[in-house]
Amino acid sequence: MSFRKEGNLVVFRFEDGKDVIESLKRVAKEHQIRSGVILSGIGMLRDFGISFYSREKGGYITHKFNEPVELLSLSGNISLRNNEPFFHLHVALAKEDKSAIGGHLKKATVHNTLEGIMVKFSEIKLTRDPETRILSVL
Amino acid sequence: MSFRKEGNLVVFRFEDGKDVIESLKRVAKEHQIRSGVILSGIGMLRDFGISFYSREKGGYITHKFNEPVELLSLSGNISLRNNEPFFHLHVALAKEDKSAIGGHLKKATVHNTLEGIMVKFSEIKLTRDPETRILSVL
Amino acid sequence: MSFRKEGNLVVFRFEDGKDVIESLKRVAKEHQIRSGVILSGIGMLRDFGISFYSREKGGYITHKFNEPVELLSLSGNISLRNNEPFFHLHVALAKEDKSAIGGHLKKATVHNTLEGIMVKFSEIKLTRDPETRILSVL
Repeated sequence: MSFRKEGNLVVFRFEDGKDVIESLKRVAKEHQIRSGVILSGIGMLRDFGISFYSREKGGYITHKFNEPVELLSLSGNISLRNNEPFFHLHVALAKEDKSAIGGHLKKATVHNTLEGIMVKFSEIKLTRDPETRILSVL
Repeated sequence: MSFRKEGNLVVFRFEDGKDVIESLKRVAKEHQIRSGVILSGIGMLRDFGISFYSREKGGYITHKFNEPVELLSLSGNISLRNNEPFFHLHVALAKEDKSAIGGHLKKATVHNTLEGIMVKFSEIKLTRDPETRILSVL
Repeated sequence: MSFRKEGNLVVFRFEDGKDVIESLKRVAKEHQIRSGVILSGIGMLRDFGISFYSREKGGYITHKFNEPVELLSLSGNISLRNNEPFFHLHVALAKEDKSAIGGHLKKATVHNTLEGIMVKFSEIKLTRDPETRILSVL
């Protein structure tokens, strides 16, 4: 794992086998990022869960996948929820046959590599209500 | 709807039921953004139209969808066209079965939430020719 | 081809028929970008190759496509490899039927237009090992 900050931007690289969300949390902790945005992430994932939020079914419908996929895009934000940095992340992925899938990222393991960038806010405060999950931009 | 600016970045959050493009226009108007880039957007959409530009058919081929989809990525830019801020937006989306679709965004309604970020330019001028649709970077 | 820099951001627009990677290299060269990140890119591509990295098959499995597709997202980074700027790029694309595909971008021609943005680092050094392909964030 390596990462470095320039201005309000932090570039990071995670190795094969790392937990994606735990690694992002570690970068956020090291740079004291409590509010921010994930601007980009590419590489590959394996052993991941992606979700679709269904009102009819009253929650997230998660599908788990084991096989490696190319990470086409990683987007999201970091907000404070119960005073802890919380990552809201969406991914677009491609299978070996090149077809794309995606959703809300629940969990994932880095396959080969993950290379990305996040922005740290100093003035903007992002908070997320633990009950309603609503993001406030303050 | 809430949004806030730090440096040249504006973070925004739109509520369920809002028109995506009208909401983006409002953020741009409030912060006097005439040239900019949409760096990220996640959440969900419903009642949207996505297009493919076909030279053979001489224009955009638009498909309309009613069902909710996860918004995997939102990319694009803000330029002046006929002296009005114009949004050129592309989206990647995921259906309930996790399969991804996408295209040029014609219109969409926010489903649950939309959380994103745009950058405002002060020096760069982006203009779009109303006839040719060509973007100039000045 | 047109591009312009404001702060550490460079906005670019490539015309129909241009080679995507060669055009990005030219922007990087003009602005002396040796380390950076591609934050966004939209437009259309044709005559492109996208790859999936397979450990089992010991390398990239590339599929070539001739038909035009919408470019939904362009993400990646610029690092020094053998002292030359190297672009690691992933794309999400949509076909005329709106279904999405994607992967590691090997080569592509701009169809109609490509509009994007990259960030130039002044302090962060990104280098890529020519043998292992591993990115170092220094």
